[in-house]
Amino acid sequence: MLEYLNLKLFTGRRGAPPGTLEYSGKEREFSPYLNHFAYSSDGLVEQAYNPMGPAPDLSDGRVHFLSLTGVHEADVVKSLGAWGGAHPLMMEDILNTGQRPKLNEQDGVFFATLRNVDYDLETKRIQEEQVSLLWSEQHLLAFQESEQDAWAPVIERLRKGGKRIRSGGVDYLVVALMDSLVDGAMEALSLLTVEVQELESTLARKPEEQALLEVYRVRRDCILLLRNVLLPTHEVLSSLKRNEVFAASAEAVHYLGDVLEHALHGTEAAKVLHDILGGMMDVHISLAGMRMNNVMKVLTIVATIFIPLTFIAGIYGMNFKIMPELEWAWGYPAALGLMLAVALGMVWYFMRKRWF
Amino acid sequence: MLEYLNLKLFTGRRGAPPGTLEYSGKEREFSPYLNHFAYSSDGLVEQAYNPMGPAPDLSDGRVHFLSLTGVHEADVVKSLGAWGGAHPLMMEDILNTGQRPKLNEQDGVFFATLRNVDYDLETKRIQEEQVSLLWSEQHLLAFQESEQDAWAPVIERLRKGGKRIRSGGVDYLVVALMDSLVDGAMEALSLLTVEVQELESTLARKPEEQALLEVYRVRRDCILLLRNVLLPTHEVLSSLKRNEVFAASAEAVHYLGDVLEHALHGTEAAKVLHDILGGMMDVHISLAGMRMNNVMKVLTIVATIFIPLTFIAGIYGMNFKIMPELEWAWGYPAALGLMLAVALGMVWYFMRKRWF
Amino acid sequence: MLEYLNLKLFTGRRGAPPGTLEYSGKEREFSPYLNHFAYSSDGLVEQAYNPMGPAPDLSDGRVHFLSLTGVHEADVVKSLGAWGGAHPLMMEDILNTGQRPKLNEQDGVFFATLRNVDYDLETKRIQEEQVSLLWSEQHLLAFQESEQDAWAPVIERLRKGGKRIRSGGVDYLVVALMDSLVDGAMEALSLLTVEVQELESTLARKPEEQALLEVYRVRRDCILLLRNVLLPTHEVLSSLKRNEVFAASAEAVHYLGDVLEHALHGTEAAKVLHDILGGMMDVHISLAGMRMNNVMKVLTIVATIFIPLTFIAGIYGMNFKIMPELEWAWGYPAALGLMLAVALGMVWYFMRKRWF
Amino acid sequence: MLEYLNLKLFTGRRGAPPGTLEYSGKEREFSPYLNHFAYSSDGLVEQAYNPMGPAPDLSDGRVHFLSLTGVHEADVVKSLGAWGGAHPLMMEDILNTGQRPKLNEQDGVFFATLRNVDYDLETKRIQEEQVSLLWSEQHLLAFQESEQDAWAPVIERLRKGGKRIRSGGVDYLVVALMDSLVDGAMEALSLLTVEVQELESTLARKPEEQALLEVYRVRRDCILLLRNVLLPTHEVLSSLKRNEVFAASAEAVHYLGDVLEHALHGTEAAKVLHDILGGMMDVHISLAGMRMNNVMKVLTIVATIFIPLTFIAGIYGMNFKIMPELEWAWGYPAALGLMLAVALGMVWYFMRKRWF
Amino acid sequence: MLEYLNLKLFTGRRGAPPGTLEYSGKEREFSPYLNHFAYSSDGLVEQAYNPMGPAPDLSDGRVHFLSLTGVHEADVVKSLGAWGGAHPLMMEDILNTGQRPKLNEQDGVFFATLRNVDYDLETKRIQEEQVSLLWSEQHLLAFQESEQDAWAPVIERLRKGGKRIRSGGVDYLVVALMDSLVDGAMEALSLLTVEVQELESTLARKPEEQALLEVYRVRRDCILLLRNVLLPTHEVLSSLKRNEVFAASAEAVHYLGDVLEHALHGTEAAKVLHDILGGMMDVHISLAGMRMNNVMKVLTIVATIFIPLTFIAGIYGMNFKIMPELEWAWGYPAALGLMLAVALGMVWYFMRKRWF
Repeated sequence: MLEYLNLKLFTGRRGAPPGTLEYSGKEREFSPYLNHFAYSSDGLVEQAYNPMGPAPDLSDGRVHFLSLTGVHEADVVKSLGAWGGAHPLMMEDILNTGQRPKLNEQDGVFFATLRNVDYDLETKRIQEEQVSLLWSEQHLLAFQESEQDAWAPVIERLRKGGKRIRSGGVDYLVVALMDSLVDGAMEALSLLTVEVQELESTLARKPEEQALLEVYRVRRDCILLLRNVLLPTHEVLSSLKRNEVFAASAEAVHYLGDVLEHALHGTEAAKVLHDILGGMMDVHISLAGMRMNNVMKVLTIVATIFIPLTFIAGIYGMNFKIMPELEWAWGYPAALGLMLAVALGMVWYFMRKRWF
Repeated sequence: MLEYLNLKLFTGRRGAPPGTLEYSGKEREFSPYLNHFAYSSDGLVEQAYNPMGPAPDLSDGRVHFLSLTGVHEADVVKSLGAWGGAHPLMMEDILNTGQRPKLNEQDGVFFATLRNVDYDLETKRIQEEQVSLLWSEQHLLAFQESEQDAWAPVIERLRKGGKRIRSGGVDYLVVALMDSLVDGAMEALSLLTVEVQELESTLARKPEEQALLEVYRVRRDCILLLRNVLLPTHEVLSSLKRNEVFAASAEAVHYLGDVLEHALHGTEAAKVLHDILGGMMDVHISLAGMRMNNVMKVLTIVATIFIPLTFIAGIYGMNFKIMPELEWAWGYPAALGLMLAVALGMVWYFMRKRWF
Repeated sequence: MLEYLNLKLFTGRRGAPPGTLEYSGKEREFSPYLNHFAYSSDGLVEQAYNPMGPAPDLSDGRVHFLSLTGVHEADVVKSLGAWGGAHPLMMEDILNTGQRPKLNEQDGVFFATLRNVDYDLETKRIQEEQVSLLWSEQHLLAFQESEQDAWAPVIERLRKGGKRIRSGGVDYLVVALMDSLVDGAMEALSLLTVEVQELESTLARKPEEQALLEVYRVRRDCILLLRNVLLPTHEVLSSLKRNEVFAASAEAVHYLGDVLEHALHGTEAAKVLHDILGGMMDVHISLAGMRMNNVMKVLTIVATIFIPLTFIAGIYGMNFKIMPELEWAWGYPAALGLMLAVALGMVWYFMRKRWF
Repeated sequence: MLEYLNLKLFTGRRGAPPGTLEYSGKEREFSPYLNHFAYSSDGLVEQAYNPMGPAPDLSDGRVHFLSLTGVHEADVVKSLGAWGGAHPLMMEDILNTGQRPKLNEQDGVFFATLRNVDYDLETKRIQEEQVSLLWSEQHLLAFQESEQDAWAPVIERLRKGGKRIRSGGVDYLVVALMDSLVDGAMEALSLLTVEVQELESTLARKPEEQALLEVYRVRRDCILLLRNVLLPTHEVLSSLKRNEVFAASAEAVHYLGDVLEHALHGTEAAKVLHDILGGMMDVHISLAGMRMNNVMKVLTIVATIFIPLTFIAGIYGMNFKIMPELEWAWGYPAALGLMLAVALGMVWYFMRKRWF
Repeated sequence: MLEYLNLKLFTGRRGAPPGTLEYSGKEREFSPYLNHFAYSSDGLVEQAYNPMGPAPDLSDGRVHFLSLTGVHEADVVKSLGAWGGAHPLMMEDILNTGQRPKLNEQDGVFFATLRNVDYDLETKRIQEEQVSLLWSEQHLLAFQESEQDAWAPVIERLRKGGKRIRSGGVDYLVVALMDSLVDGAMEALSLLTVEVQELESTLARKPEEQALLEVYRVRRDCILLLRNVLLPTHEVLSSLKRNEVFAASAEAVHYLGDVLEHALHGTEAAKVLHDILGGMMDVHISLAGMRMNNVMKVLTIVATIFIPLTFIAGIYGMNFKIMPELEWAWGYPAALGLMLAVALGMVWYFMRKRWF
């Protein structure tokens, strides 16, 4: 998941002129496709669309939401960007899929890059992609790297005829999409919390290598989620809230405040988790050490008890001609008795010292 | 207690439209019930009330304090929220019981979500629930998740006829309720401090696994109390103090300042505790290691002394035909003497090196 | 010293109305007593006084300094507070002896709670109490929990006829008293530094359990001194400096600046000590581990050398009928030689590996 | 790489007057050389130039970019600095190659010292040098300590006839050069990230001394990159952006914003890496300890099983006259059986305790 | 070097009136002496002077630089302070040699206390003293605790006839003296860096107790240098730069900016060093542990291999009447063969597990 830092795209890029339009993300095996949703409070028209074809009529009073899945073909992005009125630097940002989330505005065209996060329950790994939003008064273009369901819940609401979303403008749609992204990150975080709780309950039982590596992994994911997704997304949301050009309806402003609060909740929770995991790691490590030591102590005590006994046996195994004890009738039982006494003495001493 | 992070409610919620009125907390087994307190300096009328019934007359000049216990029935909350003039997003916050404490105001209706904390002395666990306050000029609605006694002390004061509270308005009541919440958190913190003192005194005596897990647990609760309760409650209190619409009497403002100071005291104390527990954890771990090592050292010394002796015995246990020492009359005592000399030499050496 | 956090007074207090006048500190065994000092540049009159009796004439142009020792009788505090014009919340703060240092002002009456610190050289423990100052133009009341000598140096200066203090007004007296408190904290800190230096010099010689517990204790006291005394006292001092109602003479302002600088010096020094003690703790722990390991290594080497020798002896102790070596004339010396060779070989190997 | 801290130049420098013009960096073996690029949208003229010769005509309306490689001859720097209108303190900064990145402006002459970073893939070491830029309206002088390719990509773009750079003024050139520096640091950082990923994957397999030293090294380089290059470069870039005298075209301002964002991305990524490496170090150390302990445990268990068996054998090796068992027909098999029983009993016990 | 915290002077000082003129530093064995430098661009007159004698004529248009070495005689300081127009609190600060660096100004008289640092190359210890500067328009008095060469480089420049310093006023001299102090601290820091590099290179070779104590010591000195010298000196310098009364020439302002930048560079470098040393300490400790463990592992493996062999020998050393193997002709070689097989089996197993 360190790929998230998205630093690889800087390798071999030194001195490339700004605005170079080349895709720089992972290789993808599907062809990019474009969905078009045109809606107003009267209804929703939905269709697939050829991104290289002529631009649809975007000024019919309805809200146009165009969602491109796959940005690995620069021409497609260029063609679509041109429809949306994007500056070349914006197109570059769409293609270089390792941007820090940010918000730009130029001549009434807004551009935001954000990150979509999905937690894969099976592999317990966080999947992550860059998404970009480009909007002006009547239309919004959404760009997405992979086929993850970043917008699925919003599209669902559109299809189901949600009143508020259908009658809201592009401003409301923007907030709804960002809400979906924040909810994705929050979901990932809450699944990490579940893992933390499981780890905490195994802590008392059986601290082991594997669990330690788990704690480390969850903590690392927590840092990455906090620093690379939640904190910068919060920045983007609050700079959107403060933006004077972003003419949002009262409804959308309210909604945006709500999303901001969720993002803040998320950053706080991620910090708390990070702190707790730090402490858990320390406790984990030392518990493992303590238990190990306890095992070693018992083993060592056993050895320590038998070594002097073996020594006594060794004495009477010597072959000296003249060893009076060997001749005694009670020599053997006496030796065994001595051994027993030594053993019991040691056990008693160790118990008094509470070493057992 | 990680449930506190209240992130679970985000699972499976991706893209839910804002304002969805569904309860999202723990399952509860009691039916919500509503108590109604109407008072002025002339007296107090107290009665149980049907939350689904018609609204009582709230504009008779008295202060109306309605306390709902249990928010797990959305209809009840909706009906009551309508009486109090709540915005749908506020009702959603009452039902989604994992909110970060916050304060909203709209058209003279104030809404705050806060957290009520109780420390269970037997289980040594912190119990925690969300409470919401909704108030305007003549009435206050309090929503509470469980049957914990969040408002008991305030109701006690009302019943006992406390002068200041009876003659104060809704503003004074709000501060009194928040004071009760802060005092609950402070009480939890002070009980944690008691545990810390106990842990400190066991530290010098017997550092063990269990104690270490205790230190970890207290420290984690300390973080959660600080970050999830005390810090955000302090924020709510100070934004209430700064709020220009909140028309509080001089008495209530004074009181609010006092509560703020307690909350600040609490955050500072929680930070100090956190620091101290960090150090205690480190010392704990290393003391355990040191004592373990001391035990191992003694055991190893015993083994080390007997191993060469056993070797000597082994030599004279060999069956060579020609071993002159075996024939000597003083062979056996000489061998025993040699063993004694070796043992004493080693003891002397270890003592000089201060290994004992 | 965790009592310092003063959280215990919150236990069982939930919902108590503000302004409840009950003492909440440790039990005390002496009766509170009141000293009265009236002075001007012309002279000093000093007398014991009955705090429950009628108020003295405070408006004769002289400065009146009334010092109450012991605040465990609420009536005494109430009576005195009434003389001094205290608000009920101020009296509550005097009685609840676990306040965070703070400064209030109302209608020209100033009220400050601060903490007096003494380091007991014998027990190496910090003793700590709450002190409160209540002053207006012509008089100052000082409240003190115990019989520690918080004001002794100032009274000394008054008695010795110090010119500046005698001709200064109440403002100068306030600063002198606060100076005495800051000096007390600084003295405690400097005695901690002496301990740190001693600990550092024992570090290289003999890292042991006891020393580790000492480092932990000094570090904890350092945190408490910093966070509970020095930082909040600094806050009080600077809010006093900024206060516009506090009409101080140029001399007193200068003096206050000096005290502020000492407090700042103290906070910085406490932070440095805290950092250094952290590092010292780590080094301590690992040095102890390293030395322990060295002992274990030597012991293990001894055992490792003798175990193969014992094995050889064991071989020639076997009772097989046909064991040709046993019949050889040089068998025994050869066996001994073999053992010596093995032992020397191992020693040589361990030395080459620098394990000794 | 600690040389980076560039503190050595302060040794023996105490009290040197400011503006002393002496080179203070590493010894270099090549002669400084100067390249001259004069360009406008009409074309590019490129030539080598004698830095000690007469100054070229810099006011012909074209942009003049003079790049000096090697600053270890003070006369060359003095002569060039005079052409560019540098203040003596600026020349001193060029020669003392351990400056913290900074930006100065005086009478329309800008001066910036920055750091150029290269990651050597073979030695896995970061190479680092100081570069200085000195510019006014029509010309820019770039000073570089070594023969690293700091400006290569920019020169490439100039040669290839990049439209934007050729038609941009000195302002655009300045940003392009800084972009190249930031890209260099980002490339180094991304190569460190690759190493981190490799280290993470070896972590689970084989934690060893060498890997631990690697983690330490990468972490140290990360700190140095963050604190000595990325953070101060970000400061320089943002103070350039805020500078009111720096008259940049809209194109250059845009570009500068882009570079700033990269630098910010870099600082954030470096902080994340630093955090992650800290956790990795801890995990590494304890995994190594755990595995070691597991080996020790197995070995100790083996020894612990055999020691009592050896003791039993020792008993029947004693030479007492009267030892009835020795005479029994089934004595030997019985003894062997006893040993087997003891061994199996211990194995069963250890398995039940899950020590294996 | 903890003396640096300069807290000892607070012991026993509680309540001393401000402005008490008593020396509070280390005992010194030399008599204080005063050097007088009077200079202008025309020349320099240098002479020793009796500090108790009459004041020289300070208003002849030349700059008068009076340097007192040794402040342990209060009368000398008082007499000189009176010449210079010092407030009694300033004189107290000169005598109490544990001040935090600070800057005061009153009626055109400036007063600064700073710290002079020297690194003793032999003992590897930092030596440190307080210096005070007192200046107004035409003269500057410098007070120095010991005979360290704090001002030597500046005096050198004066003697050599440095143009800028000779023609500069008191303002330039002030900056030159502060530059000398900052350079001293930077030199100490760079020598610490050299030690850090040495420690880093021994790290990989031989982590030992002594080296660990060194790392601890360097880190502690680093903290002290940062917090007690560099940070507060930086504060003094920047408050001097912002001071509106300090009428400095353009030259001096420039120079001051330069010194400020050095101090900033120093604080940054000290922080980096501190971070790196923290990591180094951790690595050091764990490398030592790992190597120790490796030794133990080898030793334990040797023991583990021989213990079963000894057991086998023990079996055939038993004295049972009927032990068929003992009668066999090939019994002895078979037993030896069995032992060899067991030993090889164990070695093979350990090797496969990569325990060697």
